[in-house]
Amino acid sequence: MNFWFKEKNTDGYQVKWKISKILHNEKTPYQELAVVNTLEWGKALILDGALQVSEKDEFIYHEMIVHVPMFSHPAPRNVLIIGGGDGGTLRELCKHPELQKVDMVEIDERVVAASKKYLPSISSAFGDTRVNLYFQDGIEFVKKAGKYDLVIVDSSDPVGPAQQLFTREFYSNIYNCLNDDGMIVVQSESPVFYQEVFRSVYQNIKAVFPRTMVYLAYVPTYVSGPWSFTIGSKVYDPREYKGGSNAGFDLKYYNGKVHQAAFALPEFIQDMIQA
Amino acid sequence: MNFWFKEKNTDGYQVKWKISKILHNEKTPYQELAVVNTLEWGKALILDGALQVSEKDEFIYHEMIVHVPMFSHPAPRNVLIIGGGDGGTLRELCKHPELQKVDMVEIDERVVAASKKYLPSISSAFGDTRVNLYFQDGIEFVKKAGKYDLVIVDSSDPVGPAQQLFTREFYSNIYNCLNDDGMIVVQSESPVFYQEVFRSVYQNIKAVFPRTMVYLAYVPTYVSGPWSFTIGSKVYDPREYKGGSNAGFDLKYYNGKVHQAAFALPEFIQDMIQA
Repeated sequence: MNFWFKEKNTDGYQVKWKISKILHNEKTPYQELAVVNTLEWGKALILDGALQVSEKDEFIYHEMIVHVPMFSHPAPRNVLIIGGGDGGTLRELCKHPELQKVDMVEIDERVVAASKKYLPSISSAFGDTRVNLYFQDGIEFVKKAGKYDLVIVDSSDPVGPAQQLFTREFYSNIYNCLNDDGMIVVQSESPVFYQEVFRSVYQNIKAVFPRTMVYLAYVPTYVSGPWSFTIGSKVYDPREYKGGSNAGFDLKYYNGKVHQAAFALPEFIQDMIQA
Repeated sequence: MNFWFKEKNTDGYQVKWKISKILHNEKTPYQELAVVNTLEWGKALILDGALQVSEKDEFIYHEMIVHVPMFSHPAPRNVLIIGGGDGGTLRELCKHPELQKVDMVEIDERVVAASKKYLPSISSAFGDTRVNLYFQDGIEFVKKAGKYDLVIVDSSDPVGPAQQLFTREFYSNIYNCLNDDGMIVVQSESPVFYQEVFRSVYQNIKAVFPRTMVYLAYVPTYVSGPWSFTIGSKVYDPREYKGGSNAGFDLKYYNGKVHQAAFALPEFIQDMIQA
């Protein structure tokens, strides 16, 4: 049979994935949540009409949002994740032996529940003893939290519950709950398809942090072209890879050369953030 | 109105672009050719159901297939382009003042005619006095051609007329029409969506050339994830950027840092070509 999931993209561009089964579909208090079997990408988690992770390529996004900041900070021990309910970011983070404590704040308990049930290879680290999981609003959490070496904002697109996670005020509250040499990393959307969001994240982080840097990755199940991440750093230059050989991490995308290369921006993207 | 061009991708993945007008559509002796107005990507050239170039992002593919090899060869004077009928590769090549002669071999005269008529910003270099344009089969041409510093294989996908441009025999004939320090560059498809083609291009070039290297670029109107190019080189290491400041080239994607970064392969792609 011919079943397709059609993603909401821009007015003039659409991507569709063929599916064989809708494993789960519910309306949570915050968003519409579904898990499907795709023909070519394994199981996939969908929130409010946008594919969030597929089993086949989720390693790319998760390795890149975690290991780039973790390997540019010399001793990251306490980390806060905001969002990331599927658990992929947590799984990558927990590979770091120097990590002592992770607080994870996800607004929607149902995302974690669905991932635990349907996506065990992604949600595998929720049992790690270093993890404290809070089902709360990240916006409120960071107003009184502290002190972290790294805050990871692993949000969905800036519609629905994630909208407030793209504001200057939010980044400013994160600045205050970071140690003196801490950093923030956020997923900052496609610089080609969602230029305005990309630009505004950069400007908002730059208004708060002394060093602001963009890096890119190839994520096949997101819209084509580069996907961006933005780092705000109090002290360290995130372009400097401090990870040694990272032997034993068993990574499928990230390595030291990829770390450094990810910061080499095409001219038109450099122009977007300089303007 | 709601008109869409739906691309042939894989069985389980499809991309669609909204269009406002079909400017041209014909069956040439070699393939089906169309030019459309898209809503968001300017005018686009389509061959046999696959979008080849859009006005909005064609600079990425064309800059990357030309300037990476041109800036890793210390003195590229004579160049052969096989395919590339839209003229974008030629336009980028003609920016190089040290270039003395370009032979361009396109099998389908109609592609050049359509590009000249509908895509003037892409087909702008056909009048350059250094250019000799041949409407011939590239397969036959390279059996008796020579001697070049660089051969660029700017082909469409390996279906229809382009199929023979992905074989070991073809690369071997190109080896013979290169100078002793010459190189070949080919577009080698998506390593994620078209793994078999990507792998076989690498293996076929590696069987012929002493140095074989893959590099990547983000091309928004091609399938998502990285798009790959493969270089076979007789002497020079293509990772070494020799372009100085490339000031005055007015490029929108390529620069010296992007050149070097493009060769930093994600682990899973490195694994694909080492196996």
